[in-house]
Amino acid sequence: MTGLEEARRIFFRAFQGRFTGSEEIESRAAAGRVTSGPVFARLSSPAFHAAAMDGIAVRAEETFSASDINPLALDLSSGQAEFINTGQPMPQDKNAVIMIENVSLDRPEGQGATRAIIRAPAFPWQHVRKIGEDIVATELLFPSHHLLTAADVGALIAAGVERVAVRKRPRVVIIPTGSELITLEEAAEGIPPGKTIESNSAMLAAMAGQAGAEVEVLPIVPDEYEMIRAAVIDALDSGADMVVLNAGSSAGSADYTVRVIGDLGSVLVHGITIMPGKPTVLGLVEGVAVVGNPGYPVSALISFEQFLAPLIRKMQGLDEEVRPRLKAVCGRNLPSKAGIEEFRRMITGRVGGQLVALPVKKGAGAITTMTRANSMLRIPASSEGVSAGQVIEIELLRPESQIEKTILCIGSHDLSLDLIHDFLRRSVPAWYMAATHVGSLGGIVAVRDGLCHVAGTHLLDPETGQYNVGYIERYLKGKMQARLYTLVYREQGFMVRPGNPKEIRSISDLAREDVTFVNRQAGSGTRVLLDHELKRAGISPSEVTGYENEEYTHMAVAVSVLSGKADAGLGILAAARALGLDFIPVAEERYDLLIPEQEAESPAIEALFQIITSSGFRSRVEALGGYSAKDAGRLVAKV
Amino acid sequence: MTGLEEARRIFFRAFQGRFTGSEEIESRAAAGRVTSGPVFARLSSPAFHAAAMDGIAVRAEETFSASDINPLALDLSSGQAEFINTGQPMPQDKNAVIMIENVSLDRPEGQGATRAIIRAPAFPWQHVRKIGEDIVATELLFPSHHLLTAADVGALIAAGVERVAVRKRPRVVIIPTGSELITLEEAAEGIPPGKTIESNSAMLAAMAGQAGAEVEVLPIVPDEYEMIRAAVIDALDSGADMVVLNAGSSAGSADYTVRVIGDLGSVLVHGITIMPGKPTVLGLVEGVAVVGNPGYPVSALISFEQFLAPLIRKMQGLDEEVRPRLKAVCGRNLPSKAGIEEFRRMITGRVGGQLVALPVKKGAGAITTMTRANSMLRIPASSEGVSAGQVIEIELLRPESQIEKTILCIGSHDLSLDLIHDFLRRSVPAWYMAATHVGSLGGIVAVRDGLCHVAGTHLLDPETGQYNVGYIERYLKGKMQARLYTLVYREQGFMVRPGNPKEIRSISDLAREDVTFVNRQAGSGTRVLLDHELKRAGISPSEVTGYENEEYTHMAVAVSVLSGKADAGLGILAAARALGLDFIPVAEERYDLLIPEQEAESPAIEALFQIITSSGFRSRVEALGGYSAKDAGRLVAKV
Repeated sequence: MTGLEEARRIFFRAFQGRFTGSEEIESRAAAGRVTSGPVFARLSSPAFHAAAMDGIAVRAEETFSASDINPLALDLSSGQAEFINTGQPMPQDKNAVIMIENVSLDRPEGQGATRAIIRAPAFPWQHVRKIGEDIVATELLFPSHHLLTAADVGALIAAGVERVAVRKRPRVVIIPTGSELITLEEAAEGIPPGKTIESNSAMLAAMAGQAGAEVEVLPIVPDEYEMIRAAVIDALDSGADMVVLNAGSSAGSADYTVRVIGDLGSVLVHGITIMPGKPTVLGLVEGVAVVGNPGYPVSALISFEQFLAPLIRKMQGLDEEVRPRLKAVCGRNLPSKAGIEEFRRMITGRVGGQLVALPVKKGAGAITTMTRANSMLRIPASSEGVSAGQVIEIELLRPESQIEKTILCIGSHDLSLDLIHDFLRRSVPAWYMAATHVGSLGGIVAVRDGLCHVAGTHLLDPETGQYNVGYIERYLKGKMQARLYTLVYREQGFMVRPGNPKEIRSISDLAREDVTFVNRQAGSGTRVLLDHELKRAGISPSEVTGYENEEYTHMAVAVSVLSGKADAGLGILAAARALGLDFIPVAEERYDLLIPEQEAESPAIEALFQIITSSGFRSRVEALGGYSAKDAGRLVAKV
Repeated sequence: MTGLEEARRIFFRAFQGRFTGSEEIESRAAAGRVTSGPVFARLSSPAFHAAAMDGIAVRAEETFSASDINPLALDLSSGQAEFINTGQPMPQDKNAVIMIENVSLDRPEGQGATRAIIRAPAFPWQHVRKIGEDIVATELLFPSHHLLTAADVGALIAAGVERVAVRKRPRVVIIPTGSELITLEEAAEGIPPGKTIESNSAMLAAMAGQAGAEVEVLPIVPDEYEMIRAAVIDALDSGADMVVLNAGSSAGSADYTVRVIGDLGSVLVHGITIMPGKPTVLGLVEGVAVVGNPGYPVSALISFEQFLAPLIRKMQGLDEEVRPRLKAVCGRNLPSKAGIEEFRRMITGRVGGQLVALPVKKGAGAITTMTRANSMLRIPASSEGVSAGQVIEIELLRPESQIEKTILCIGSHDLSLDLIHDFLRRSVPAWYMAATHVGSLGGIVAVRDGLCHVAGTHLLDPETGQYNVGYIERYLKGKMQARLYTLVYREQGFMVRPGNPKEIRSISDLAREDVTFVNRQAGSGTRVLLDHELKRAGISPSEVTGYENEEYTHMAVAVSVLSGKADAGLGILAAARALGLDFIPVAEERYDLLIPEQEAESPAIEALFQIITSSGFRSRVEALGGYSAKDAGRLVAKV
């Protein structure tokens, strides 16, 4: 196991100067490319003395007597003065231009004028762009290893340079490996049992392309030593400048990458003290980088951007891309194992004037932890973690302007929040939403602690039968002012397999021995509702098979039922419908939005309210089924 | 004339919501594109409960009795426990994975083992990735107007989404106009008198492409109303989403853009209070942006990036790109006209611990003012300028990492500096150089004021016959410590047309009536040398025709001679050679580098010295002709 910086040093040093390919391309197409040698001007620009203004061309020496009290008339018919436009060549015997605004003509419209009257002298070469003023033939236009911009392309063309020698784009070959993998196309009719869609190669190809490589993705290779070895040899024979094996790089029985690289060349690094990304293998075969990139998508991504993207850029003479950084307050305790550099995906937004960063889920297997994040926290190997309230430095995955317009939404999840997100993106100006789903109570606590703009909550108070109000009074009073607004009413009920094979009709059926239940996590509104209904029916949790089996979202509960893992779960109609499950209504509940007082009038919340009070939003919510948005935006309580 | 912000508001508002084109593309190719509607998952990921670790799959309930003092043996042969690798589907009856590291086998190598001994219980679903843990079928993957990243492409594929609807790239048609323009190809054999290579279209096409447009550049259209009108109509008929006329937008007689736009549609804005970029015309024809982009390259660029690049991005649902900004100390007084927002191209580097920004030349006609700059200062219309020493905010044209590694070189220019620049770019780690040529004295003053890392100087002290030392003592002593190192010796002499038609042999020939001279600017070392030689020969400057005619570089002097504007100029052999001029030696002079003491040991100067003391550099300098680098790097004086 090697530390990240050490691994990078070893890897980059091994390829230092190895890739120096150059090609000549049209200057017109050279923006974004890097010169492979110095570039000299072929022609001068301007190629002649040219007027820099619209006006008259004169010989400066003949104008010296002109003044306000002694205006001077220059003869246009004899050519003593000549009309000239910007960019036109200066007449051979002229050396200055007088702007047309400073000239009076004997015929004001210009046509047919014979005399031009001036009231101030011209000095030699005034308003004249001299030959070579911009570019002198033979001079150095650009040094070696210069990244050409659009303006540079303009300069190349202006200097008469038709073609320019630039660093070649490296050719990157990506080989997906894994006997369990199928292509997206093979999954058109669904995913056969035990199979997984191979999705990393498309992601890595996009990353390699963004780094400037030409990319080829080979067909999936099963986990067999000889086949992997043959694929690597083929890739090298075809002229690859980099070969990426994905995945097969962990310690399991199906992992041949290390052996293949070791047998064909040498393993430079095997295993890196980062998380995700640990099972990375970096190798060198015939002078070419051959690497085992980890299989989990986030591991694959982080490993790629730490080693392969920078190498691809270095190969072209480009500097490594550095993500912009910002300081933010960390909203949670994030313990981290010492000795491992951890990459935590975060959502960051500006709440109550300060940037707040909150972690999303950890799993390296979940690409959505990456797609939902807008920032990244690196916890160094030397640290045992970060405390809530600590100021941290985050790397931006999205532009700062986006982070500043991101609404942080923490708490219970509801499908209507996804609709709001979609509407927010289409509003003008557009807003972003970043969410983590931690249950209703988690959301209320996040509002109390100043960590979010809005929290979704649907907590039933069993004593009063009321939703949310009692909880926010208990948690917020004296600590944080906030407002509670209704978003929707929604039906909660049992989701069961189509046709309801176990004939579940009411809460009492959950106590049956032949019924397995799937629960929501403690602190979620649905869990409170279940516990309330169980109590009313006189059923103890220990009588419910599967009570301890917790999921974090309605959809996850629905999936549990659909897959047969459970016979019933409590959730919303929309989730049941989405997966084609039957639904037995249990209760209608109110789902509210809790908003800290300090944000209640902010542009972010204003944008949110414009949406939730619109008829477009209401009709789309109600089309989900089991929803009423009739009170959306109604103030329920202030605390 | 309209203010910049007002013009932007008018322009962007006119096209708000007009361009909503959408197309379906392969998800694999969607990185960098923007969704045109919400995207939902087709399949769940994982599609089954999968092992998250290599180890054994067990039923958690059967492991609860295991402990350190009561190890539990699980039967492998009966299938009570099963080997499993990361990513493999969980057996139907198992609900937990125990990592292989925590399992003892009765046959340690694994093969043929029948019993697995564990010393701790597993809890249900430990190390299992549950179905839908990452993505649940039907859930919202991405909202509308979401910029898809490489990771997002991975998520699309993992969710079984083969094709995705994204905003169309707008089609931008660029029409170069101007009767004086020729193509680069037409200039293959040189530029005919009065003609100019059309270079803006390549620059604008590159900018439009970088903003995401599909670009077509039409052939050059002469300055004729009917032809320009026809070209615009053709472009609109061909389905252009934006038409860019370049140039023909100033007030001169050749400017038909405004009329064409006004006749076909409406002119939204004509003339903007920015410099460069003032003669911009923004129009609307049949719902399409038709604009007159100014002709000077820097004007064209600034106008394009203020109006057209942002509109192209908005058309795709992308936010405007915002350049990163930094605070820097302004090194010069920069007066600016009130009422005009000025864009000054700057070079910025870190000198003595602080970022220093210095202006390059102003001319909007010189694209090299843009290509040589690494930063931009915007002086608002409300300001009359910036004072030296003032802290300013600069926009970065190059990455911050580059600015931090930029050596600022102010003073006299020598061709060997271009060589150093080229070597710096090829060194490891590579450095950048940014230079402005203000003459030897200007360089010494810049060192005194802490504005640069290095200044080139070749000032002859006529009293002592010595180079540089007297000057730096006079200017620096007690104010700034610095070191003076020799770079090269070089021959100065008269550059004359090939064959020396005026038979110029010595300094006294400059006094001849039939000889026109071209001079260097006051304060330059070459000017001091000339004045010294004139004095020695007893010639007064007034006897020299063209003495007042000043150029700023050796190459510009050479061009003056080559073009016939002057018969002779004083300069270096290399410049004469570059343009094929004859050379009559006058003197050998020493060209030194002055380096502030505080920078003398800095990494930047270390990199510089590694180059100038290398044999590779010396041989390339001497190959220029008229150079000796035998003393390169020798310390001459400390002050």
